Amino acid sequence: MNMRIETAALDTLCANALRFLAIDAVEQAKSGHPGMPMGMAEIAVALWTRHLRHDPADPAWADRDRFVLSNGHGSMLLYGLLHLTGYDLPLDELKRFRQLHSKTPGHPEHGLTPGIETTTGPLGQGLANAVGMALAEKLLAREFNRPGFDIVDHRTWVFLGDGCLMEGISQEAASFAGVQRLSKLIALWDDNHISIDGEVDGWFADDTPARFHACGWNVIEDVDGHDVAAVDEAIREALANARNDTGPTLICCRTVIGRGSPARAGTAGIHGAPLGRDEVAATREELGWPHAPFEIPAEVRAAFDARPAGAQRRAAWQASFEAYRAAWPEAAAEFERRTAGRLPVGFNVLAQAILRGVNNDGATLASRKASQDAIARLARALPELLGGSADLTHSNLTDWPGCGAVRADQPGRHINWGVREFGMSAALNGLALHGGFLPFGATFLVFSDYARNAIRMSALLRQRVIYVMTHDSIGLGEDGPTHQPVEHLPSLRLIPGLDVWRPCDAVETQAAWNAAVGRTGPSLLALSRQNLPHQPRDSAQLEAIARGGYVLAEAAGGKPTLVLIATGSEVALAMAARERLQADGLPTRVVSMPCTAAFDRQDADWRASVLPAGVARLAVEAAHPDGWWKYLADAPRAAVVGIARFGESAPAGDLAAFFGLTAERVADSARRLL
Amino acid sequence: MNMRIETAALDTLCANALRFLAIDAVEQAKSGHPGMPMGMAEIAVALWTRHLRHDPADPAWADRDRFVLSNGHGSMLLYGLLHLTGYDLPLDELKRFRQLHSKTPGHPEHGLTPGIETTTGPLGQGLANAVGMALAEKLLAREFNRPGFDIVDHRTWVFLGDGCLMEGISQEAASFAGVQRLSKLIALWDDNHISIDGEVDGWFADDTPARFHACGWNVIEDVDGHDVAAVDEAIREALANARNDTGPTLICCRTVIGRGSPARAGTAGIHGAPLGRDEVAATREELGWPHAPFEIPAEVRAAFDARPAGAQRRAAWQASFEAYRAAWPEAAAEFERRTAGRLPVGFNVLAQAILRGVNNDGATLASRKASQDAIARLARALPELLGGSADLTHSNLTDWPGCGAVRADQPGRHINWGVREFGMSAALNGLALHGGFLPFGATFLVFSDYARNAIRMSALLRQRVIYVMTHDSIGLGEDGPTHQPVEHLPSLRLIPGLDVWRPCDAVETQAAWNAAVGRTGPSLLALSRQNLPHQPRDSAQLEAIARGGYVLAEAAGGKPTLVLIATGSEVALAMAARERLQADGLPTRVVSMPCTAAFDRQDADWRASVLPAGVARLAVEAAHPDGWWKYLADAPRAAVVGIARFGESAPAGDLAAFFGLTAERVADSARRLL
Repeated sequence: MNMRIETAALDTLCANALRFLAIDAVEQAKSGHPGMPMGMAEIAVALWTRHLRHDPADPAWADRDRFVLSNGHGSMLLYGLLHLTGYDLPLDELKRFRQLHSKTPGHPEHGLTPGIETTTGPLGQGLANAVGMALAEKLLAREFNRPGFDIVDHRTWVFLGDGCLMEGISQEAASFAGVQRLSKLIALWDDNHISIDGEVDGWFADDTPARFHACGWNVIEDVDGHDVAAVDEAIREALANARNDTGPTLICCRTVIGRGSPARAGTAGIHGAPLGRDEVAATREELGWPHAPFEIPAEVRAAFDARPAGAQRRAAWQASFEAYRAAWPEAAAEFERRTAGRLPVGFNVLAQAILRGVNNDGATLASRKASQDAIARLARALPELLGGSADLTHSNLTDWPGCGAVRADQPGRHINWGVREFGMSAALNGLALHGGFLPFGATFLVFSDYARNAIRMSALLRQRVIYVMTHDSIGLGEDGPTHQPVEHLPSLRLIPGLDVWRPCDAVETQAAWNAAVGRTGPSLLALSRQNLPHQPRDSAQLEAIARGGYVLAEAAGGKPTLVLIATGSEVALAMAARERLQADGLPTRVVSMPCTAAFDRQDADWRASVLPAGVARLAVEAAHPDGWWKYLADAPRAAVVGIARFGESAPAGDLAAFFGLTAERVADSARRLL
Repeated sequence: MNMRIETAALDTLCANALRFLAIDAVEQAKSGHPGMPMGMAEIAVALWTRHLRHDPADPAWADRDRFVLSNGHGSMLLYGLLHLTGYDLPLDELKRFRQLHSKTPGHPEHGLTPGIETTTGPLGQGLANAVGMALAEKLLAREFNRPGFDIVDHRTWVFLGDGCLMEGISQEAASFAGVQRLSKLIALWDDNHISIDGEVDGWFADDTPARFHACGWNVIEDVDGHDVAAVDEAIREALANARNDTGPTLICCRTVIGRGSPARAGTAGIHGAPLGRDEVAATREELGWPHAPFEIPAEVRAAFDARPAGAQRRAAWQASFEAYRAAWPEAAAEFERRTAGRLPVGFNVLAQAILRGVNNDGATLASRKASQDAIARLARALPELLGGSADLTHSNLTDWPGCGAVRADQPGRHINWGVREFGMSAALNGLALHGGFLPFGATFLVFSDYARNAIRMSALLRQRVIYVMTHDSIGLGEDGPTHQPVEHLPSLRLIPGLDVWRPCDAVETQAAWNAAVGRTGPSLLALSRQNLPHQPRDSAQLEAIARGGYVLAEAAGGKPTLVLIATGSEVALAMAARERLQADGLPTRVVSMPCTAAFDRQDADWRASVLPAGVARLAVEAAHPDGWWKYLADAPRAAVVGIARFGESAPAGDLAAFFGLTAERVADSARRLL
């Protein structure tokens, strides 16, 4: 027996170990997806035992390769790999697959399980996350590497299936990766010809290699996905592409879903259900696997164990980094700060000073313009700030002096994402997950719809991603109902963990940016197209903005008979209505509520001090009214002035009048309450 | 001068007429998008004067060609064409471009302006709408044509730009159109190399012809989009592809955005802003257009006028249809019924009988299973029912006995949409807009996110589209937070005009289907994975389901001290909590609220009879709680039992306990209110 054959035999053992960990865990959980792990086992062996550069002892090592399981339902494959290569994921956790509070949930969850780079399951987004990670690597390398010191030099690997490829986001991600020439991005396609509904011919007949080639990818076709040596060779070719910087690579692996199951291999029946006792036994027979569930032969453990090589590689990198530090101490410190996600020393003081400066300026600006000014101010202090727009740069106002455009061959900090809201947002998650950047992306608020599940994923992932969403109401005017958000503000506020800010002037806009930069988790800024007047504030009020809701104008005499609650462009409206009401002898308080989520986090005393019990309340917002009742339910009398229907195409002033968003109409609604 | 040259000169005049209608209308409105109409003017002349089969006198003629402006911001091009070809869109309306309640809003709006087949503006969706229309045409032709009688024989034309192609939905649409071989779908790409951010090279470098070819399209490359004869020739080739049934065709037209503007042609600067007085004058000079704004030369009017040919073509079709009627009277009557969107005579009586039958059965089923049964029952009575799933057929339960799969070469009524939620939903809009079908589509509720803007468009378009969204809560269990909807129910309820149903048992599921079939506008059914017990109802209650909210169980003694409001799977929970509370001597009413939108449409008396003033209320729903305050604000004491955070991966029973969705915990929350 020569070495090659011995290796092949061991590879087969390793692949079958992954298969049976998946089979047995799914069997034990009585639910899960065995088909993909059984189909991609050899591909996983090729990548994880031959090429993946990582150290299971330090899942946070900055220069590790990133691995993304875009077909996240195959989670047991990844759990098996993490366990066998030496991550802190004991067998006991694998036995608790899909149980409450185990580290092995149904789909991989970042932050819960060591080694999981991103949370996947919603198809196609893993690929787009990976695009963000590969972009982060390329930009960090460009910024921090020095001659002889490639301290940033890792690859981003993606497993994906037909489902990912059918999702439109895969096109956005592939197209963007191509034009940015992300050569260290390598995707392995599980081409098993099966999706949940069965043989894909009837609904998916794309020439996928040609499609990716059209997007500027290298494509390696016709690889036998059950031949570890063949996959290994394809990966070597992809790595040559990476070295030669010829663009990302797609490796097309022909596989059989559920391989090894005599009755169900190659069928949709094995995709998402346990095999059942008899078929598990038959599969053991078929594959010659005599071991009990969760029993792993020692030679398999030895073959997978990535700790010795990982420790060595990381130590070498660390040594190199120390030499780098000696030569470029500032760059080294900055690299460590950036990759740890720490803000610069003194940043908070600076941010407060900036805020006071904006308050002193007292400028009347559209909040999108105020946002652009905020970006410019913050970008000077935060080299990690990196962002752009989905082809609306001069509408969203996301660029800043000297930002430079990020191009395949050109450094910069502003990204033209193209008209790819969903791909952009999922890539922002990847940028944030990778580390080293504080990413933001922009589009019109109404098109948050296109990106919605990626925004949700930002929240589920608890990543510091900032969404700049302009043209936040009917105030955008003539573009009409397809471009006018109505339900978007209240519906985005429902995403757990997302801070939605709708600032009323330049000061609140800066405060929103400060808050977004300072928090762990995503923020979405809803910004006006039109000018918003400056609202005067004292220093306590200035500080109170961060609380999400505060008294902007107290009622005459200090005892309100009415509280007007407003956000964004409607704050000025509320202030004007207040004047009318007070002229009528009705003492009226105006509460600005730029971020309901932040307000909800305040203690009960604060909330009661802003929204006092026993006083009538009127909420005013140029959006669907139904979300406001949460803040009105404990008032004796309450109403909302909002828009419960789609908008119209007309100049903004005409629309405000038509929809009753005028000071007089607001005052009327208030009077009817009293 | 030969005929060809004369024709060319007239073509140029016609194209310039379209240009100046756009230029001058945008100038007058002080906003709008002149660049696209100026760039696609010759393409429009080629299609609309040489090939488009329509009759401006009857925009509802069933066999007209469909035209979709997927790059909807170029609306003035379409308004110019509709005006000049003879639709009821007078010049006065063009002069009121983008003004309140004009027929010429910023983006084309179906239902407002004669000849507008769909509302466009959100990029990429127009193409997917067109795919739905072309599929409708193909399926109707298959069903109704007879030898010698092609009563359904029209084409679907799409204009699209780079923005549409960058959006991922274009891939979903193109891929689906390819695999279904929709040969009468012909798209004309405005390849002007410019998007809003500028020259596209930096963010969009796809080989688009290769990409479409990879999706099974015919691609005609390198057509001079400013040469009417060249475009005409390409269209003839595309029509040959249609006749030979070789798949859809993409015609790639090289164009210059804003062609004719000396200073701004070929730049992003002309995309979305008026030219300004000086540049308008310079453009008049450049193009030799001496006419005043909105003045159209008589020969141009004559060249565009489509009324004589349209009347003739429609008359010929009508004559053929009368012969068809003579030969196949039933098919003819059915065709007329179907294309008019009328339900069969006696359908309402049948639907009520079905509902009573389901009530008598009293089965305990998952509502997704009850939905499948409802589909099977309705499909027998409604041959127009056509739908399927985004690759989750056996999870969403959308197929039915004998439905047959719709394939390129195979008739059927069930569509395997592939993993393309957004493309599916926008295609459903196209199917509904085309007429002849009552379309539905399905996915997991959490992935309504992927389709959200198309669902919004269903509502804005007021189309009868039905969304079957299963796995509606943490009740789906082990798949975990990426697959568990939390914010989706309340956020979908915020879309104006969308009826969201969350039935509590098989009876309410049938009632929801009946309501969805019977309404003008979209409905979304949120359905359980898990079994839901039957709730007994008398005939008044059975009838009351359609009101969206009704008393399912009156309090002991008829005088509630508490009202529990619940939906879907939580209705049974509320019933169990009611038992506990009443055992404690607390008379408790249970209100089932399967459709808040329907409830909101009831008169105040009904609403007050269901939710009486002065009685405490507790809402219970396994979803984000914030939406419920609208129905609680006027109660003296109120609370919501819901889930304001992301879910977890675990068996459903464990999750219910963990999240406090148990009868005892609901009863506890109720007791705390009293």
